[in-house]
Amino acid sequence: MLHIEREIAEQPEVIRRLLAQETGTAERIAQAIRAFDPAFIMIAARGTSDNAARYAQYLLGIHNNLPVALATPSVHTLYKAQPNLSRALMIGISQSGQSTDVGQVVADAKAQGALTLTITNDEGSPMAKMADYHLSLRCGEEVSVAATKTYTAQLVAIAMLSAALSSDSAAQAELQKLPDLVAQTLDLSAPVRDWVQRYRYIESMAVIGRGYNYSTAFEISIKIKELCYITCEQYSEADFRHGPIAIIQPGFPVIVVAPRGKPFELMRDLLAELNKRKAECLVISDDPDLADQAQYFMPLPSDLPEWLSPVCAVIPGQIFAKNLALTKGHTVDRPEGLTKVTFTQ
Amino acid sequence: MLHIEREIAEQPEVIRRLLAQETGTAERIAQAIRAFDPAFIMIAARGTSDNAARYAQYLLGIHNNLPVALATPSVHTLYKAQPNLSRALMIGISQSGQSTDVGQVVADAKAQGALTLTITNDEGSPMAKMADYHLSLRCGEEVSVAATKTYTAQLVAIAMLSAALSSDSAAQAELQKLPDLVAQTLDLSAPVRDWVQRYRYIESMAVIGRGYNYSTAFEISIKIKELCYITCEQYSEADFRHGPIAIIQPGFPVIVVAPRGKPFELMRDLLAELNKRKAECLVISDDPDLADQAQYFMPLPSDLPEWLSPVCAVIPGQIFAKNLALTKGHTVDRPEGLTKVTFTQ
Repeated sequence: MLHIEREIAEQPEVIRRLLAQETGTAERIAQAIRAFDPAFIMIAARGTSDNAARYAQYLLGIHNNLPVALATPSVHTLYKAQPNLSRALMIGISQSGQSTDVGQVVADAKAQGALTLTITNDEGSPMAKMADYHLSLRCGEEVSVAATKTYTAQLVAIAMLSAALSSDSAAQAELQKLPDLVAQTLDLSAPVRDWVQRYRYIESMAVIGRGYNYSTAFEISIKIKELCYITCEQYSEADFRHGPIAIIQPGFPVIVVAPRGKPFELMRDLLAELNKRKAECLVISDDPDLADQAQYFMPLPSDLPEWLSPVCAVIPGQIFAKNLALTKGHTVDRPEGLTKVTFTQ
Repeated sequence: MLHIEREIAEQPEVIRRLLAQETGTAERIAQAIRAFDPAFIMIAARGTSDNAARYAQYLLGIHNNLPVALATPSVHTLYKAQPNLSRALMIGISQSGQSTDVGQVVADAKAQGALTLTITNDEGSPMAKMADYHLSLRCGEEVSVAATKTYTAQLVAIAMLSAALSSDSAAQAELQKLPDLVAQTLDLSAPVRDWVQRYRYIESMAVIGRGYNYSTAFEISIKIKELCYITCEQYSEADFRHGPIAIIQPGFPVIVVAPRGKPFELMRDLLAELNKRKAECLVISDDPDLADQAQYFMPLPSDLPEWLSPVCAVIPGQIFAKNLALTKGHTVDRPEGLTKVTFTQ
């Protein structure tokens, strides 16, 4: 078994452990945030962690009325500038906790008086120790270079924080159901392995989401790029209509991430438009009615709360990317030219 | 002459007019911003205007110490949420001023007590009238669906605002030189028309920038997608190293946007790495030493201040995209499947 296969399969257990062991930490952090009353949140992250930050942008905006900015680390690292973060909650997210540029943004914010929080998978890492608060993902080591379980754990950590901030017991109850929903999603995604053969010679594709699952589009896209060495675009449904839709030629493959929820009608309209343009559509949804409009349909469990849907919706994408890489004959656990910990300035 | 060719050529004149007619407005807006003392800036924009917002994120962060967030309009439009923007300066950017989703974010912010500013190319548009302040781009009508002169005018409007905020007379003097620098860039970009033939059958490419010219990478990429119907990725140098660098196979075409300035060494290292991987590199820079490492070199004027470099650096990209579209036999002024004003929710 490949490391990545084991790590994908571990996700229900990882989430169960995170919920069991870190809910108290999330409560304490929420209390500190309420006391600080930030004017806004700034999140610093790179790569996959930045896609978790995108989820936070929607979730904390929608459920907690908190405006969220995504940091541009080079403002701090290359330009040595000090945007005023004194009224911010600063969150740094890094799987390894060793990201020096993300760490620099957190350190700058702390020096200015911001409330600081880091989310990492290594309690002994520099980033785990530098902030006012640390939330530990408790995933165990992630060996595969392409992150899977640490990504869904980051999403869950953010969801735990949101639920703690709103003291929402219904949300807490929904969170507790996640490990089972993720396990169901893994089962439902098993057929991907067989039909992925059709895409052996694919060279380029796109992934589209909206709202909460804008993050999912980014994350599936980065997995495909990392593992399969093909170009893969990612878009929100709205940005896609503002220009990039022009790239759709007959046969162009598009993954449409469309769980039920507020953006559903827009995503269904886009799917119809893509079919009109004869795109090859792969659909991730909990609405079986969309199966008719898909070359292949990747089902999600039927009782998925929209705000938690990104935790499940990414999973068929992880499995698609991994199996496509195998079908193309690539080394999956250690893609050529990538390293697990990336040092950027 | 195509509309887009005329509009690209008009850019020096458009910028000259904007500087001559709107500097007073920028000063008045700067005064209002200083009085309001925002905790942060939130910018709402879509497509090309969102790329101008990316420039603002760097410029206002670096020169004015203001943290900048890019809005996620669906939080407001689809989810009907009201993130607390009462301590924000809200900026809405839209070429047409008719973008209903961007307008909704501005209206929500205004109702909450935020200071609001819109930047549009139509003084009679809904967005021009809804905010506390409006900065008019004065570009004249833009007929081509793919935006060119309104994009560079948006960049200049943001630069004018930054210079007014810092009361920096050196910056003001540099701004006044821009129309000539843009005219020089147009002259220097003339050879693109001939060598673009080599890319007649290109199907996929990438554009990479960093810092101020992260915006340029996005904007060149969207022009290529809109006009040429090919996939085109865009990345910051750092994000690229965090995974997507895996897509580079021998012969893969990459536009490297590398004017002199703080990210220059990193971009030069990346160029060397791309050459090691046998990528096909097209380089936009004011450093002629990079020409040796480029299949084709797109020179910029030699006395370009880094903070204004995105206004010039995008121009060879506009011309590349337009000429590649012509070489591929596409309709350039009205790309199939796109409209000038895009209504999204």
